[in-house]
Amino acid sequence: MTSAPACSAPLSTDVAVIGAGPVGMFQVFQLGLQGLRSHLIDALPHLGGQCAELYPDKPIYDIPGIPVCTGAELVQRLRQQMAPFAPTLHLGQQVQTLVQEDDGQWLLGTATGTTLRAKAVVIAAGVGSFVPKAVKVDGIDALVGHSVHYHPADLARLPLRGQQVLVHGGDELAVQAAIDALAQAPASVTLMHRREVFSAPEALLAQLQSHQAAGRIRVLAAQPLALQADGTALQALDVSLPDGSPHSLPVQQWLVFQGISPKLGPVADWGLELVKKQLPVDTGTFVTEAPGIYAVGDINHYPGKRKLIVCGFHEATLAAFSIAEYLTDKPVLLQYTTSSSHLQNLLGVAPSAP
Amino acid sequence: MTSAPACSAPLSTDVAVIGAGPVGMFQVFQLGLQGLRSHLIDALPHLGGQCAELYPDKPIYDIPGIPVCTGAELVQRLRQQMAPFAPTLHLGQQVQTLVQEDDGQWLLGTATGTTLRAKAVVIAAGVGSFVPKAVKVDGIDALVGHSVHYHPADLARLPLRGQQVLVHGGDELAVQAAIDALAQAPASVTLMHRREVFSAPEALLAQLQSHQAAGRIRVLAAQPLALQADGTALQALDVSLPDGSPHSLPVQQWLVFQGISPKLGPVADWGLELVKKQLPVDTGTFVTEAPGIYAVGDINHYPGKRKLIVCGFHEATLAAFSIAEYLTDKPVLLQYTTSSSHLQNLLGVAPSAP
Repeated sequence: MTSAPACSAPLSTDVAVIGAGPVGMFQVFQLGLQGLRSHLIDALPHLGGQCAELYPDKPIYDIPGIPVCTGAELVQRLRQQMAPFAPTLHLGQQVQTLVQEDDGQWLLGTATGTTLRAKAVVIAAGVGSFVPKAVKVDGIDALVGHSVHYHPADLARLPLRGQQVLVHGGDELAVQAAIDALAQAPASVTLMHRREVFSAPEALLAQLQSHQAAGRIRVLAAQPLALQADGTALQALDVSLPDGSPHSLPVQQWLVFQGISPKLGPVADWGLELVKKQLPVDTGTFVTEAPGIYAVGDINHYPGKRKLIVCGFHEATLAAFSIAEYLTDKPVLLQYTTSSSHLQNLLGVAPSAP
Repeated sequence: MTSAPACSAPLSTDVAVIGAGPVGMFQVFQLGLQGLRSHLIDALPHLGGQCAELYPDKPIYDIPGIPVCTGAELVQRLRQQMAPFAPTLHLGQQVQTLVQEDDGQWLLGTATGTTLRAKAVVIAAGVGSFVPKAVKVDGIDALVGHSVHYHPADLARLPLRGQQVLVHGGDELAVQAAIDALAQAPASVTLMHRREVFSAPEALLAQLQSHQAAGRIRVLAAQPLALQADGTALQALDVSLPDGSPHSLPVQQWLVFQGISPKLGPVADWGLELVKKQLPVDTGTFVTEAPGIYAVGDINHYPGKRKLIVCGFHEATLAAFSIAEYLTDKPVLLQYTTSSSHLQNLLGVAPSAP
């Protein structure tokens, strides 16, 4: 598969798949079996959606035929499965606009300026784009990217040296970041959470305790109330301690790990009917109310719907048949990968031996 | 899982699953996640249905997250996946009767005399039991097993030595059998099909051509009209050539490869509405017209239905939720195996670390 750089000249494809979670990835595979080319777009910078973002290391037990695998393993398996169909990837790009052109094709525009023309669109956007939860303190927005950082991926790229660093959160990522920040030669590191209880593996908590005992990390149970800043430079944070008393904390760099939560995002602006933030679909075709726009996985809704990956796989399969029939205006006959040399050619595997 | 001996004392269970193909096996798994016990019944003497019977060694490419596996491997994976829920197996027993009792439960009777009482029933019987297609020529039935053989598995066990052997069919199995028959020292081998066109891999067709060129195999385009026999001994076959002219072919052993076709079997006698040999179901619950009787996999029908394993997995999943709600009369909330300690307890796996 190829990764497309952001570009403004319009690209063209058979099908644009919005959302590169497991269901979007399997959608590419099923479209490939129908002889259709796809572009796969996701706001996250990597494939896998929730599986990769929320539970890469956690076991999943209910993927049919896979008694146990982690989220990351499932993504790797699906990446291998869709590889024969070499989708063009547009990662780290949220689709912002979706409009129908006069000829019935759909024009998609992403946040980074990519324009893509597609004959059909599959929305596999899950529960939306994953964005870090914001802290509600007046004036914080102006500091983001300067002295406030939401879920920073690489601490070495932040100006932490010689600074009073506040790591803010209670989970594994927060604890890890507090420990990792020590390597950036800060003036001090404080790990703040509303309670002095952290949800992280034992080994990591033991490391934290050792840094705490040595005075390298200060652990503070508190909640933020207000900030003091000079332009984009944070100076201090006023916090509330568990007994309700106020406390002022000098801070120049504030790293926020309050979790990632999904936001439906621009899908709501595309003029499609939404019911409880979901797209109603037909269970035979998985088409939405707009001909040419399909919805599969957690974002769709129909009677009996359950937000399970196994259901999304089925939905993507029927959607692929339906799209093939929509684009060719002919019935598509069922073929089996086990016996069809046509499908085996598409997959790039030798026909089965006699 | 335990294998139950045939017995006449009625057994009891939550759910009886009829058909132990991949979808029936995954049905047991999904019912287990709902806390429901199952008995799994199949006419075949082993788990796996079509997968195990028709293509145990052939690759399957479209099981989500499994880029390639054979039918036998898929069955083994599903066996491992359902193992925590230890279904009671009744193999080699076709379900013959299904009647509702006064209390609403269902009573199943199998061909070997097992009686099973279940609160709900899932029919996952695929396209039915697999039987070779018969040739319609007067008097043929009396010869079967003597001088006529439908889809023989092992040519070495047939009395072909010194005989005029007719292999009858146009597919890969027929071509392979004609070639294999040469190893049994027959007097002659004729490969007969209605047209002189064979559907088989290139390499096999090349072998056929070489045997044909060398006079070892005669290829004949013809259709059978009548047979001449002495008791169970076939003597000759009267056939019709493509131009309509008759021809008499001396034959002592007739190997028929007209394909395997499924026979629906007793399902047709249970008083359920059938449309084109399929059971119409609701796509939210996969219930049939009879409350308490569900249908999943190749045997069911709904708008958009495709006979694919991936679709059966979804159907079994929603059927399990629906059965749990039917039996408890309460809504069942969705839980994830990745995060639910309740489901992890049912699966017998340690809860994931905090």
